[in-house]
Amino acid sequence: MQAKLSKRSEDYSKWYNELIKECGIAEISPVRGCMILKPYGYSIWEKIKEGLDKMFKDTGHENAYFPIFIPKSFFSKEAAHVEGFAKECAIVTHSRLRNASDGSGIEVDPTSKLEEELIVRPTSETIIWDAYKRWIKSYRDLPLLINQWANVIRWEMRTRMFLRTTEILWQEGHTAHTTKKEAIEEAEKMLGVYVDFIENTMAIPVTKGIKTENERFGGAEITYTIETITQDRRALQAGTSHFLGTNFAKAFDVKFADKDGKLNYVWGTSWGVTTRLIGSLIMSHSDDQGLVLPPKLAPIQIIIIPIFKNKDSKNMVIEKALEIKKQLSKFTVKIDDRDYYRPGWKFNEYELKGVPIRITVGSRDIENNTVEIFRRDNQTKSTVSLDNLSTTISNTLDDIQQNLFNKALKFRNDNTHKVDTYDQFKEVLKNKRGFILAHWDGTSETEIKIKEETKATIRCVFLDEDVEEGKCIYSGKPSKRRVLFAEAY
Amino acid sequence: MQAKLSKRSEDYSKWYNELIKECGIAEISPVRGCMILKPYGYSIWEKIKEGLDKMFKDTGHENAYFPIFIPKSFFSKEAAHVEGFAKECAIVTHSRLRNASDGSGIEVDPTSKLEEELIVRPTSETIIWDAYKRWIKSYRDLPLLINQWANVIRWEMRTRMFLRTTEILWQEGHTAHTTKKEAIEEAEKMLGVYVDFIENTMAIPVTKGIKTENERFGGAEITYTIETITQDRRALQAGTSHFLGTNFAKAFDVKFADKDGKLNYVWGTSWGVTTRLIGSLIMSHSDDQGLVLPPKLAPIQIIIIPIFKNKDSKNMVIEKALEIKKQLSKFTVKIDDRDYYRPGWKFNEYELKGVPIRITVGSRDIENNTVEIFRRDNQTKSTVSLDNLSTTISNTLDDIQQNLFNKALKFRNDNTHKVDTYDQFKEVLKNKRGFILAHWDGTSETEIKIKEETKATIRCVFLDEDVEEGKCIYSGKPSKRRVLFAEAY
Repeated sequence: MQAKLSKRSEDYSKWYNELIKECGIAEISPVRGCMILKPYGYSIWEKIKEGLDKMFKDTGHENAYFPIFIPKSFFSKEAAHVEGFAKECAIVTHSRLRNASDGSGIEVDPTSKLEEELIVRPTSETIIWDAYKRWIKSYRDLPLLINQWANVIRWEMRTRMFLRTTEILWQEGHTAHTTKKEAIEEAEKMLGVYVDFIENTMAIPVTKGIKTENERFGGAEITYTIETITQDRRALQAGTSHFLGTNFAKAFDVKFADKDGKLNYVWGTSWGVTTRLIGSLIMSHSDDQGLVLPPKLAPIQIIIIPIFKNKDSKNMVIEKALEIKKQLSKFTVKIDDRDYYRPGWKFNEYELKGVPIRITVGSRDIENNTVEIFRRDNQTKSTVSLDNLSTTISNTLDDIQQNLFNKALKFRNDNTHKVDTYDQFKEVLKNKRGFILAHWDGTSETEIKIKEETKATIRCVFLDEDVEEGKCIYSGKPSKRRVLFAEAY
Repeated sequence: MQAKLSKRSEDYSKWYNELIKECGIAEISPVRGCMILKPYGYSIWEKIKEGLDKMFKDTGHENAYFPIFIPKSFFSKEAAHVEGFAKECAIVTHSRLRNASDGSGIEVDPTSKLEEELIVRPTSETIIWDAYKRWIKSYRDLPLLINQWANVIRWEMRTRMFLRTTEILWQEGHTAHTTKKEAIEEAEKMLGVYVDFIENTMAIPVTKGIKTENERFGGAEITYTIETITQDRRALQAGTSHFLGTNFAKAFDVKFADKDGKLNYVWGTSWGVTTRLIGSLIMSHSDDQGLVLPPKLAPIQIIIIPIFKNKDSKNMVIEKALEIKKQLSKFTVKIDDRDYYRPGWKFNEYELKGVPIRITVGSRDIENNTVEIFRRDNQTKSTVSLDNLSTTISNTLDDIQQNLFNKALKFRNDNTHKVDTYDQFKEVLKNKRGFILAHWDGTSETEIKIKEETKATIRCVFLDEDVEEGKCIYSGKPSKRRVLFAEAY
């Protein structure tokens, strides 16, 4: 790829789309709002899946799989849920095509109309709690800790690759518990798993808290959220974890017998992250040259580019490259020895793809027992000895991982603003955007008015922030703590 | 689970359904023809995915993900393909629900009718070759070796768990090549990967060959197949690999520039296996006591059951069980120390679940430095020393793996019949079923007549069988080799 990307400072949205296309992670498909995850993009998703799946299993969860279709009537059982999810969706109404009588091709056979329409799942609470009714009889069946890796459909009006697509790849955890306390602990624990993964593997700092009633998941009593900041200083919701109370247990009549044989409703949680994480990744670390991947998530950690002028030097250099690859066998290393591309072309290609370290090997390096190392994160080159190369690389990868996190954290801190008046609030939004910490009176009314007037929403109410008395920037009414406002993707 | 299964000899179909339910691998869902893969069943599927995914990657394939919806018009582009797939399918026609005006719930909003209906993918050739047109320009882009793990929908009239369901979990490989030869080699290579995995990991012997024109995949020029035999002596198609010729390249106008700059159509393959493999697994090894799993595929290889009478002996026995688990850390070991179930209950439970080895530990064993081992495959018990337990277990697992394969192979050989007349053919089908090797004149006409009269179909034409002159059992016309007939699932 030799395309030059637009500059982030000039058109962030254009840069984002070009980057996704040019580095080969995804592309828009001919199906409205659906994207194609190309092999390089899918391999990033595989790394995310692998990492999270291990963490879910280490915390006692098992995977299962439930049907993609949900009977229309299931949605109506939980009032807030149907409000939130059943409106914009893909509806299967027929089961057969036939040849059109006018020879124009194929058409829907009207005689195949389904008795009850099926909704392609936007989320699986209803079909899963319907099963939990069969699976849960006694306290011995609890806790039930299940996760599903699946595709879901939400008929979004305006789509944007990774951030808002019609089809979404995700995981959805659905757990059932004997007590409210245990369910809340589960919802918080899984939020903690997300924080751990996103900060330590993806190198993205997250802000956590709970959603206001307006922004809560349909059917939840508490929605925990993690928010990240993008380079264009908007908030991006990276994952949510819900305490469902007994809402779905009541909707689907799921009770367990306790030790005394008494029947009680089951307490539930659900939690999920999606391919949106890749959007957050791009918008946290990338630069005008392309993607920048943290070493722990990079499908290729090190690319080796052999530099040669003729056949003799080619053989020698490639042999050395193979030797280095072997020496670095505990990392993910690829050698690009294609001879129909020039080294400069390859340099650009792997910069675009965000490979953390590039090693170039030429004849002179072999003489000197050195190689040149290029760090993608800060774009610096250095010549290092082949002795102890594995240690040098290991330290460099650790340093890159840490550096990316630190840079992103500094960016977030630099773009977080405490404001005390509505004028300041509007001025920050207009000129800088970013995260805004401001007092709010706790009413939906105020929240909605601020949203209508400024587009900013309350991203979260902090869980563990110190109490700080103040006055709502909008109503002037008393407030116990600041909340996080931002314009969100 | 303390349920007793029906006997295979009395009602194989009833036994099959009871086994699936009682051992907790799957259940029927409220959605027509869709099943729920419960955690234990899904963990078997995860083992299959893991094993195959590694083999695909080792042979140079990468994973990607394409949209679940396919525009209706895409199917019409390849004539044989639309015939084979677009007829019985799930069709999305609308994108919005609304509250019914009579207050009866929610209904499809007629104003949300889609301009072009979307088909929930039954297979992805069309949407993938549409992308390949954008991805393939030159010979440098080839071969393109892509696999997808996904769900697909086929609106089957009569469904049976794992064997024929509306929603299917599967993988589908889709590759593109510069030459016919290379594409055929790819299709055969991937069939070989399936054979390797199914025989060596799942311990199921397979028969391979090619499908007749009647049974060929819609859009393929050659369909390679692997067939397994079930305990009720029917054939079960376990996987297929297709050489697509240039059919999809022509339908989607996919050409590559060769080294001389000349444009040529691209050659294609596709290949897939599904959760049906779990059906084949059940129908190959299980018995009247439940599932029998080959060690290489078992989510739990060894279950340890501590036996104790009082609290003192409980602590001692559980401590020993933990010690043994540690000693066997290279295997997948679980200890069941739940005290609200009796040992006998647990014995039945893990027999039902097909765990290859059960180890019981009691106070007397500790005194004697022994444990009791129970082999699920042949239901034999033995008392073995705790010294070198890891070696004993390793050898026993190998022996179980081999024994299951040998038993299944013997069963297939015992139930394969060479017949030379149509009367013999019908008599075998009526009294024994099984695999039948018989001469066939090579015409679709004969094949169809035999199917109509006996329900038996040609499962495959052998690739490497010795030539043997003979006469077609139906028409008496000359035949060059026997083919495999059977009544199939």
